[in-house]
Amino acid sequence: MPKEINVGLVGYSFMGKAHSHAYRDVEMFFDSGAVPVMKAICGRNEVAVAAAAKKFGWEGYETSWKKLVERDDIDLVDISTPGDSHRDIAVAAAAAGKHIFCEKPLANTLAEAREMLDAVQKAKVKHMVAFNYRRVPAVALARQLIEEGRIGKIYHWRAVYLQDWIMDPNFPLVWRLVKKQAGSGPHGDLNAHIIDLAHYLVGDISDVVGMDTTFIKERPMPEGIDASLGARVGGGRRRMGRVTVDDATLFLARFKNGAIGSFEATRFAGGRRNHNRFEINGSKGSLAFNLEKMNELQFYSRDDEPHMQGFREIVVNEKAHPYIAAWWPPGHIIGWEHTFVHEVHDLLSSIVRGKPVHPDFEDGVRVQAVLEGVSLSAREKRWVKISEL
Amino acid sequence: MPKEINVGLVGYSFMGKAHSHAYRDVEMFFDSGAVPVMKAICGRNEVAVAAAAKKFGWEGYETSWKKLVERDDIDLVDISTPGDSHRDIAVAAAAAGKHIFCEKPLANTLAEAREMLDAVQKAKVKHMVAFNYRRVPAVALARQLIEEGRIGKIYHWRAVYLQDWIMDPNFPLVWRLVKKQAGSGPHGDLNAHIIDLAHYLVGDISDVVGMDTTFIKERPMPEGIDASLGARVGGGRRRMGRVTVDDATLFLARFKNGAIGSFEATRFAGGRRNHNRFEINGSKGSLAFNLEKMNELQFYSRDDEPHMQGFREIVVNEKAHPYIAAWWPPGHIIGWEHTFVHEVHDLLSSIVRGKPVHPDFEDGVRVQAVLEGVSLSAREKRWVKISEL
Amino acid sequence: MPKEINVGLVGYSFMGKAHSHAYRDVEMFFDSGAVPVMKAICGRNEVAVAAAAKKFGWEGYETSWKKLVERDDIDLVDISTPGDSHRDIAVAAAAAGKHIFCEKPLANTLAEAREMLDAVQKAKVKHMVAFNYRRVPAVALARQLIEEGRIGKIYHWRAVYLQDWIMDPNFPLVWRLVKKQAGSGPHGDLNAHIIDLAHYLVGDISDVVGMDTTFIKERPMPEGIDASLGARVGGGRRRMGRVTVDDATLFLARFKNGAIGSFEATRFAGGRRNHNRFEINGSKGSLAFNLEKMNELQFYSRDDEPHMQGFREIVVNEKAHPYIAAWWPPGHIIGWEHTFVHEVHDLLSSIVRGKPVHPDFEDGVRVQAVLEGVSLSAREKRWVKISEL
Amino acid sequence: MPKEINVGLVGYSFMGKAHSHAYRDVEMFFDSGAVPVMKAICGRNEVAVAAAAKKFGWEGYETSWKKLVERDDIDLVDISTPGDSHRDIAVAAAAAGKHIFCEKPLANTLAEAREMLDAVQKAKVKHMVAFNYRRVPAVALARQLIEEGRIGKIYHWRAVYLQDWIMDPNFPLVWRLVKKQAGSGPHGDLNAHIIDLAHYLVGDISDVVGMDTTFIKERPMPEGIDASLGARVGGGRRRMGRVTVDDATLFLARFKNGAIGSFEATRFAGGRRNHNRFEINGSKGSLAFNLEKMNELQFYSRDDEPHMQGFREIVVNEKAHPYIAAWWPPGHIIGWEHTFVHEVHDLLSSIVRGKPVHPDFEDGVRVQAVLEGVSLSAREKRWVKISEL
Repeated sequence: MPKEINVGLVGYSFMGKAHSHAYRDVEMFFDSGAVPVMKAICGRNEVAVAAAAKKFGWEGYETSWKKLVERDDIDLVDISTPGDSHRDIAVAAAAAGKHIFCEKPLANTLAEAREMLDAVQKAKVKHMVAFNYRRVPAVALARQLIEEGRIGKIYHWRAVYLQDWIMDPNFPLVWRLVKKQAGSGPHGDLNAHIIDLAHYLVGDISDVVGMDTTFIKERPMPEGIDASLGARVGGGRRRMGRVTVDDATLFLARFKNGAIGSFEATRFAGGRRNHNRFEINGSKGSLAFNLEKMNELQFYSRDDEPHMQGFREIVVNEKAHPYIAAWWPPGHIIGWEHTFVHEVHDLLSSIVRGKPVHPDFEDGVRVQAVLEGVSLSAREKRWVKISEL
Repeated sequence: MPKEINVGLVGYSFMGKAHSHAYRDVEMFFDSGAVPVMKAICGRNEVAVAAAAKKFGWEGYETSWKKLVERDDIDLVDISTPGDSHRDIAVAAAAAGKHIFCEKPLANTLAEAREMLDAVQKAKVKHMVAFNYRRVPAVALARQLIEEGRIGKIYHWRAVYLQDWIMDPNFPLVWRLVKKQAGSGPHGDLNAHIIDLAHYLVGDISDVVGMDTTFIKERPMPEGIDASLGARVGGGRRRMGRVTVDDATLFLARFKNGAIGSFEATRFAGGRRNHNRFEINGSKGSLAFNLEKMNELQFYSRDDEPHMQGFREIVVNEKAHPYIAAWWPPGHIIGWEHTFVHEVHDLLSSIVRGKPVHPDFEDGVRVQAVLEGVSLSAREKRWVKISEL
Repeated sequence: MPKEINVGLVGYSFMGKAHSHAYRDVEMFFDSGAVPVMKAICGRNEVAVAAAAKKFGWEGYETSWKKLVERDDIDLVDISTPGDSHRDIAVAAAAAGKHIFCEKPLANTLAEAREMLDAVQKAKVKHMVAFNYRRVPAVALARQLIEEGRIGKIYHWRAVYLQDWIMDPNFPLVWRLVKKQAGSGPHGDLNAHIIDLAHYLVGDISDVVGMDTTFIKERPMPEGIDASLGARVGGGRRRMGRVTVDDATLFLARFKNGAIGSFEATRFAGGRRNHNRFEINGSKGSLAFNLEKMNELQFYSRDDEPHMQGFREIVVNEKAHPYIAAWWPPGHIIGWEHTFVHEVHDLLSSIVRGKPVHPDFEDGVRVQAVLEGVSLSAREKRWVKISEL
Repeated sequence: MPKEINVGLVGYSFMGKAHSHAYRDVEMFFDSGAVPVMKAICGRNEVAVAAAAKKFGWEGYETSWKKLVERDDIDLVDISTPGDSHRDIAVAAAAAGKHIFCEKPLANTLAEAREMLDAVQKAKVKHMVAFNYRRVPAVALARQLIEEGRIGKIYHWRAVYLQDWIMDPNFPLVWRLVKKQAGSGPHGDLNAHIIDLAHYLVGDISDVVGMDTTFIKERPMPEGIDASLGARVGGGRRRMGRVTVDDATLFLARFKNGAIGSFEATRFAGGRRNHNRFEINGSKGSLAFNLEKMNELQFYSRDDEPHMQGFREIVVNEKAHPYIAAWWPPGHIIGWEHTFVHEVHDLLSSIVRGKPVHPDFEDGVRVQAVLEGVSLSAREKRWVKISEL
């Protein structure tokens, strides 16, 4: 009989929904050795969180995360809130002896992230950061091919994460555009993902130089937003507020193993809805991936005979591919949300089998260090050595 | 409060799992006005069906479909078995006053299909056939664009459904290769899908001419298969059986509205795992779709200025697109199984609101007539008029 | 020193220009053992042909093809006229002992084509039909891979040749829409190409069943067109004429080697400018090609390891590829007109070295037989055996 | 009657051949108002240059460029040599009153480039730099769409130029890997191209920060190479020499108009043969291009209706597109070498009509300044302001 693991989830919005779905579905497809019990979801707005609890299938709800993390019947705390609350929740949850699954980026600052890592290590609980793209089957296959030596020594990493949802200057000043809550713009939201993928697929970054920009510096305040966020009365009929995060951040990097790389995150790439694309070139081959076509991996091998060389498009939907045996027959493609099911499966397995799971808070700190290094580089217009942060 | 609709599902294999998942998830994403209650799943092997019931989340199970359809606490019977049992189950379920959701093709023969349609019409129950590809958002968008007049009068339909899972001559003689159970090979399995899509997107077919072939005529018997299926003792060490269905069926068609079309279904297209691709050319534009890239629709408009014309790749993942508002933000793509969630949502809505739902058994009969017309054409090597069947 | 071969070209329009360019350029890139001397170009309109001679680089011109083929200083007659004049020119040229390079289709009827073949065989001159797509490097590579056994026994051929240049109902009744001159519509113009490719890549066709249609039955007469073409006075302000050729022709085929295939040619596929696409599925792999992306060949191999299988996109621009060593470095792609340079190179080599060249008039007759078989099938609504024509 | 312009070409290798072909073909397709007369080609190796003259169609040859530029019968000097000789030839040609067409990059240093610009301005001759990719029809269309306001205010430029021809460590130390001759590696060879495209499509660059690397630091000496190039006796059996140029150079940039951009050039991107790809994101739309698919332009418009938005693939082969009316019917694609025909057409027109032509030496100097700024940035690990160079 699989062990039951009681889950308490903080957050019921976009990420809260994605995580809820993963707990709801994991048991139907995977044998994790443990099954999650959806005990309680937590949010400050009682009407909204009660509705979410019902819709998503949670047994109950809480309106205070402090209460949630102290409940005896919770084994695992899932933190799916904006970055400004991660540290407090995680530290409290660790102190209460709960395992922790935390959304990315781990925190809004490197110092907070390190504090969180310290807390979970002291408490000896399991900890995982939700860099879910490691668990896209095509990405996991990329890692496998690298480990099998298929692309040899890596020379180049080239990644962009492009979106376009705030291009309209009338798009309001939501929390993701407010530094106090979000920490940063696409840098922490999107570069965080591709930095983690670079760590996963290439290795540690040693030095960075970057730049950022904010194309649209003022935006209309959303209904009901806190005036403390920097609002001012504009000349027009709608109150305007200052955008305090980046609209785009780019950087160049040197890896410890001699590879070089480029990274870009923006919310101003028209037509690119969720375009997380990377390419890796090694001495024996290349790999390319694009999240908008997440069931496909491009692979080029210099080992192919000269007249038959080319990038092959692997539809990563075979039993031979990571995670896929649990799903449908070949070519019956899966979607974005499945990555969370894979995360939950691996986390549950890790808890019940006492094995480590990645990315953990240590990985989260590594990402945070690069994020912070890049921001420092952009501010001071110089190269930054990550090890000196 | 949404109404509860009690479901009994017959079949727990590939399709049974896909349908189970839809019932499990629909409420989390859609407001259908009704929620499904997963009462019982049914299969002949008690150990297997009990395990499936537990894993998929059904309250209980049955080992006799006759018992299932007679249960007072079942409102909706879901038939996810091979085609040879559809007629009997559907007729009995209709007689018992149950709504019916039936896997495709509706039956193994046109006569059976008509009998089923007759039964549900007499019983005045809701009936739906699971041609799930109508509910791929990109396909629903194609229909919407056609209805909006974006491609004008249709000239051409061009569809293939290519797979490759039985190319190995040592692949065994499973039920899908046995006429008695499956009715036909890729013709009923795959052409059925693209015929339904043609009906949905173009209109009724008037005449067909077709051909079929079986490339590999004998295959090893699977473990434990019934000798009555045509097995014979081969010269080698494994018993061989005769393949009694087509490996590939192609046909040409004239539509009632003057359009012309081609169809092909095969299981011998190496590298095409689940390649359901169609293209439509009209007087004002064109549409193209491929199930392996199911979140994309290609659209060409002659209304674009001459120097800016081209097929545009619509990533069908926007709030503006059918079904998508219920899921994730733009570019967070969905998978194959979501089509079943859409079906169940529409079926539940239809039941609770007393509105018709399509494709229904009448649509199923239309597909069956074309399937049968093509088989007749292939056998007698002549054109067949569908209205004369 | 390479031998000089004196060329006389009949036709100075689209094809005349493409052939002229080939003679002009071939020597700069290829060592054919012979170099063409551009002696004379021929056309009925003296002003126009004189201008073409100058622009394309011909030494002189003729206004009568009869005079051209009798000139002592001509070794090779190139026939780049509409199909209704091929037979007469070719028979006369053969009688005069000239080698012949003839545009496709070889003739407007099978009988004419056979007469032409007979003439060149009796005259023992070199003969070649300009099915230029055999000499797209990607197509030549496809043939090479097939010969190397890379895709095994062939099961499927699937080809379409789609264009859209006459979709506007106001497009005038040009010669290509007049049966008397063109023989047929896209059937002879486009299906001819893909039939030849099927012969080249798969083998001989044994049986066909086809259909054709004319979507737009009347069109405005072009300025100055001969009234004998079927013009009538319309109700409106522009004289209308009857379209006497097909707008689209589709057919199914059985090959002698057991493969099956489908073919389609249309001028009503909006957005498809010159979309000659085929796919071949064999027991060991698959190939796919699209003329609009003519520098690319898609190749799938079942020999790849299971987790690394996929269609690879070979950019056919390497020294290792057919014809490419003569051109530019890798990835510096070539264009459509280069296929004619390749043809001329191979034809010149063949003449000077006394070796056969393909496709020759025999290949042209094979294509013509299939074209005629399909037309007969469409007319009589039945299967037609090619060997009985 | 078109004017005749006598051409003398220095260089007969890769670029010399491409330029020769352009002079040979331009008249057949374009009415430039002038026609080139291929007077003489020049190279130091008499046997080789004589053969090239014959094969490419030049009237004669020279073995000294000094003699060539002084010939009275030469109007236009074409410099298709490595960068270390550009300055001397150009200054002499200008002094002799010749128009100049010079391969890119304009020179090996900014100082040399400025000297060249000074010389042609003083001599009042026409001058053009062969950044041929401006004349890919798809790129010219991109420029047209930008000028038409289709993508609005530009936010992002993102370009890579990837090749892979020296990935084999045994590839020899050819002149392109020797700083003295080539000036730099892919930086001057490839980044030069994408910098010019950025200037053409976005505008002037104000600040850069960059990095470079040499992955393989020693290579075998080619047969017959000058020992002065840095050869040393290796431990093995082949003499090794030091690679004195970059293998890859990446940089970030700010444009004067507020846009930001990234650039990368490498010869270590396995499978990317000639992958010059860029993407531009503006407030109203986006454009994307890849030289390996040079007949295609991707265009996304925010003006499309929400449910019909997507990148459209424009096959840039219509009469409505730049340069294409001179070539073939729609969808009959052109190749890499055609860009040179377009350059020569525009240059000849410019000479005969007394109009300016771009890119000229001033554009060449702008590119050179950015190249030098990036090298300086990489060396000193800091941001560099282009205007201060």
